[in-house]
Amino acid sequence: MTNITVLGAGAWGTTFGQVLADAGNSVTMWAIEPEIVEGIRDHHHNAVRLPSVERLPENMTATGDRAEAVRDAEIVVVAIAAQAARKALADFRDIIPAHAIVVSLMKGIERGTNKRMDEVVREALDLPENRFVAVSGPNLSKEIAAREPSATVVASTNPYAAAKVANACSTSYFHPFTSNDVIGLEMCGSLKNVVALAVGMARGAGYGENTAAMIETRGLAELTALGKAAGADPKTFAGLAGVGDLIATCGSPLSRNYTFGANLGKGLTVEEATKVSNGVAEGVPTTDAVVALGDQLHVPTPLAFAMSHVLHEGISCEQMLGELFGTEITAE
Amino acid sequence: MTNITVLGAGAWGTTFGQVLADAGNSVTMWAIEPEIVEGIRDHHHNAVRLPSVERLPENMTATGDRAEAVRDAEIVVVAIAAQAARKALADFRDIIPAHAIVVSLMKGIERGTNKRMDEVVREALDLPENRFVAVSGPNLSKEIAAREPSATVVASTNPYAAAKVANACSTSYFHPFTSNDVIGLEMCGSLKNVVALAVGMARGAGYGENTAAMIETRGLAELTALGKAAGADPKTFAGLAGVGDLIATCGSPLSRNYTFGANLGKGLTVEEATKVSNGVAEGVPTTDAVVALGDQLHVPTPLAFAMSHVLHEGISCEQMLGELFGTEITAE
Repeated sequence: MTNITVLGAGAWGTTFGQVLADAGNSVTMWAIEPEIVEGIRDHHHNAVRLPSVERLPENMTATGDRAEAVRDAEIVVVAIAAQAARKALADFRDIIPAHAIVVSLMKGIERGTNKRMDEVVREALDLPENRFVAVSGPNLSKEIAAREPSATVVASTNPYAAAKVANACSTSYFHPFTSNDVIGLEMCGSLKNVVALAVGMARGAGYGENTAAMIETRGLAELTALGKAAGADPKTFAGLAGVGDLIATCGSPLSRNYTFGANLGKGLTVEEATKVSNGVAEGVPTTDAVVALGDQLHVPTPLAFAMSHVLHEGISCEQMLGELFGTEITAE
Repeated sequence: MTNITVLGAGAWGTTFGQVLADAGNSVTMWAIEPEIVEGIRDHHHNAVRLPSVERLPENMTATGDRAEAVRDAEIVVVAIAAQAARKALADFRDIIPAHAIVVSLMKGIERGTNKRMDEVVREALDLPENRFVAVSGPNLSKEIAAREPSATVVASTNPYAAAKVANACSTSYFHPFTSNDVIGLEMCGSLKNVVALAVGMARGAGYGENTAAMIETRGLAELTALGKAAGADPKTFAGLAGVGDLIATCGSPLSRNYTFGANLGKGLTVEEATKVSNGVAEGVPTTDAVVALGDQLHVPTPLAFAMSHVLHEGISCEQMLGELFGTEITAE
């Protein structure tokens, strides 16, 4: 049994807290919203963010007090919205125990800095590399909350830290694999949103499985090449956090990037889609970040390039696919 | 314009014939059924196998006469049911023009011999390697018949033959890539049915995207390892004919292996599922073939092994997943 604190009680943070509790740990959720804290602590229920779970485990509690939350933590899990993480973590910088492992569940690229979440977390907490762990995989929270069988990847440059976290989240329905490729894991989790946007667009335009599969496959090849040039292990992209997460994300019409893309595919402008979605999807700024990364690393990024023309010039799905494939026949 | 003959007027053969006609070729379909020949030749309609297409192209005709069908063919496309191919092709052995390229659209492993379709076609026609081409990818025929955007892989050890066939089937909606990895392409197309069976089973048991994505990803890793040991290029498995076809197949609840697996997942026995499906799905014998191939090549095949226990011992989906993952935590 390990004392574990989860920072942030959104759908994924609360679900992962339940996994950790099911694995036998003592779990404390920290949230800023008093009604969420009270709900979890007094009623074992997160009515705001995870209403589908009627009763969270007994060995799971909550607090709104930062110092109390992390005081006894051996593992601190960070599950805060990607763009809010740096600011929120600043308040924890001096109070996280000196030997605690810090786990990031977050996926995304920080706007403005274009930094990965491992960089954001480590900078914000002044955390050495050997205490950082990232978790990513085909992990739609709703299904894991319902205890459906899922697998994930737990990555750290420190194999002891990865093993400790993998052990802490291993249950009959949640199967962790370990990896040392933090950069690859982070890149998969954030960059796939460009592909999800494109697949959503094709679905919105009325196309079926062939078109989606072709975009996913070509997108995966593009992300793999980028990852390789950035020092990641190409195998990560062929694994659960890469193709696995891509398949789950593109298979779920509920995901934000998919829905945003689908609205573009139906003919809405970016402005209209943003209004309908109550804000822009993560894949939109990520598209520009991928194009910039490709330029920097001298890796062609035809899908991100075509999607940037969708987002900035309003080309149609058909034109996007035309740009993606060109007219020449080439080796795959 | 090239004279092309398609042997077999099933859904995929007729659809590919339409692609070839749309690309500007003169296309002759050969079929054994007089009503299909008459329908295509006189009414540009294949009411039996591809009723969704109201009017097939004008430059597409049909005949039931073998000699007439292939007499002027520069390219002969074979689209016959995998298990019937060897016998059906024997009648064409002495009449296919000496320099014609032969293209296989078939996916599967011949029962009894465990041979790939490239081996079956070449043996049946006594065809040299440099005249053989295989086509495979995420190509659900119904969507291509509706001219939705799709991509495919055209593979031959002879790059001129691959280029000739790729050129012949390139249209605004159908985009071929070339490859020299015939063995990899053939393995992807047949072995993926084991994965489709397992994904169907998980769906039938009520599980969602995470479980499907995890099975697809681990299945892909298993097939890639097998392919590598058999002399195929692992990149083929990461491409359109590998992960691409797997995504399209597992995303389509209409596929035969998916449906068969779904019935097993709902609790039907193999006998009951066979009865409901009017016959056994291709993935069933393929499962045993994969286990045998793994033994022969000394490659672990945990998914095929677990699926063989489903098929021969009737274990449940939960038990199958338990076998697949074991209880130990390992590197991915």
